[in-house]
Amino acid sequence: MTRYKLIIEYDGGGFVGWQRQDNGPSIQAALEEAVAGFCGEEVTVTGAGRTDAGVHALGQVAHFDLAKAPAPDSLRDALNAHLRPAPIAVLAAERADQDFHARFSATGRRYLYRIVNRRAPLALARGRAWFVPAPLDAAAMHEAAQLLVGRHDFTSFRAAECQARSPVKTLDRLMVERSGEEIEIRASARSFLHRQVRNMVGSLRLVGAGKWQCTDLAAALAARDRRAAGPAAPPEGLYLAGVDYG
Amino acid sequence: MTRYKLIIEYDGGGFVGWQRQDNGPSIQAALEEAVAGFCGEEVTVTGAGRTDAGVHALGQVAHFDLAKAPAPDSLRDALNAHLRPAPIAVLAAERADQDFHARFSATGRRYLYRIVNRRAPLALARGRAWFVPAPLDAAAMHEAAQLLVGRHDFTSFRAAECQARSPVKTLDRLMVERSGEEIEIRASARSFLHRQVRNMVGSLRLVGAGKWQCTDLAAALAARDRRAAGPAAPPEGLYLAGVDYG
Repeated sequence: MTRYKLIIEYDGGGFVGWQRQDNGPSIQAALEEAVAGFCGEEVTVTGAGRTDAGVHALGQVAHFDLAKAPAPDSLRDALNAHLRPAPIAVLAAERADQDFHARFSATGRRYLYRIVNRRAPLALARGRAWFVPAPLDAAAMHEAAQLLVGRHDFTSFRAAECQARSPVKTLDRLMVERSGEEIEIRASARSFLHRQVRNMVGSLRLVGAGKWQCTDLAAALAARDRRAAGPAAPPEGLYLAGVDYG
Repeated sequence: MTRYKLIIEYDGGGFVGWQRQDNGPSIQAALEEAVAGFCGEEVTVTGAGRTDAGVHALGQVAHFDLAKAPAPDSLRDALNAHLRPAPIAVLAAERADQDFHARFSATGRRYLYRIVNRRAPLALARGRAWFVPAPLDAAAMHEAAQLLVGRHDFTSFRAAECQARSPVKTLDRLMVERSGEEIEIRASARSFLHRQVRNMVGSLRLVGAGKWQCTDLAAALAARDRRAAGPAAPPEGLYLAGVDYG
């Protein structure tokens, strides 16, 4: 068997999420069907991050094994042809070692969260960013965000359905930067709890709107209770930007 | 009557273009219906640039007259509410002098053309950029583009249906810049011929692909014959970025 690693971009808008589910189309199923369409092999495509419904990817990573051993560039082009018209693109394919695992070998995950902060609703960025009409103070959000960086028990920012064994994670970076009417939030860590980025962004928004001070965010973190933090930010602003290995 | 000036963003994908037509939805008609929905007045909304089907706007400008005199911010918010769910957003509304004319008062128009130049098809930028899989030399495109800057007879880059009295225009700026896999082309002039930007981009692509040299572009311009230039670039990469006055 030959193991292949893929780097994948997608618009998560029309999908139930990365993971194959009974209730609608998933990115994983679309990729598995494209592999079957190309070479007739039934495979399981394993992703680095199981993005939720509506969440996008600029650089999801996945792996799977094939009995045949097509050239990586041919595989990439064939998968893209079979994926059409789904908004999923295989950016790169390469052969990987048998012990490479998209999820368990990952040493870092990077997420981008886009907010458009203006009075007018979204036309071009619709479905690709969180529309927040009330003015946000991005500098205050950035300052507060630094309280979350480091090793913490992130129970307050963890979805109820999260399956991680421990709520303790090390957040390496959480940057909030405004560029015109757009606010970009970049988060990186070895791994995240389920919905952690959206839950952190939802609380940072309270800080940006002046409803919370830094002390409120610190108290929410210390509470270790999901109810202590703000509501989750919507999925359409979130992008799995990249996954790092070794 | 009170004259209002609007700045408008739209995703042109599902429209027959700016101008009201019998064969499908237009941006102009959507705005006129939103005005009627808000205050019951039947108006003509005049745009600075009559963008073609599929062409987007980041900053189209338009004007119209109302018997009522609503506060500009209320007008903006009400039009956005009535425009829903069309992907059209009124970014700003203001009162304008009676002699202000969105089209005839304009002293400059700025366009952006986006190319995504990579092997993999588009997922997130689909319908928002021209997908060109073969490698393009953006530096060569920029160098050649400078031949088009200045006052020229642009007949070779003019659509057959163009209604301008003269094919002589002054192109102030034509910049080609690569940022990763994206190539951005920025054009500015007092005014453009119909489809001039898309026709120029189509020819610059031939230069970028190495099929044309600078001399070929110069010859195409000198020919004053549409058949001498390259095919038009598709509409989905084009954005009316802004309109300048006074």
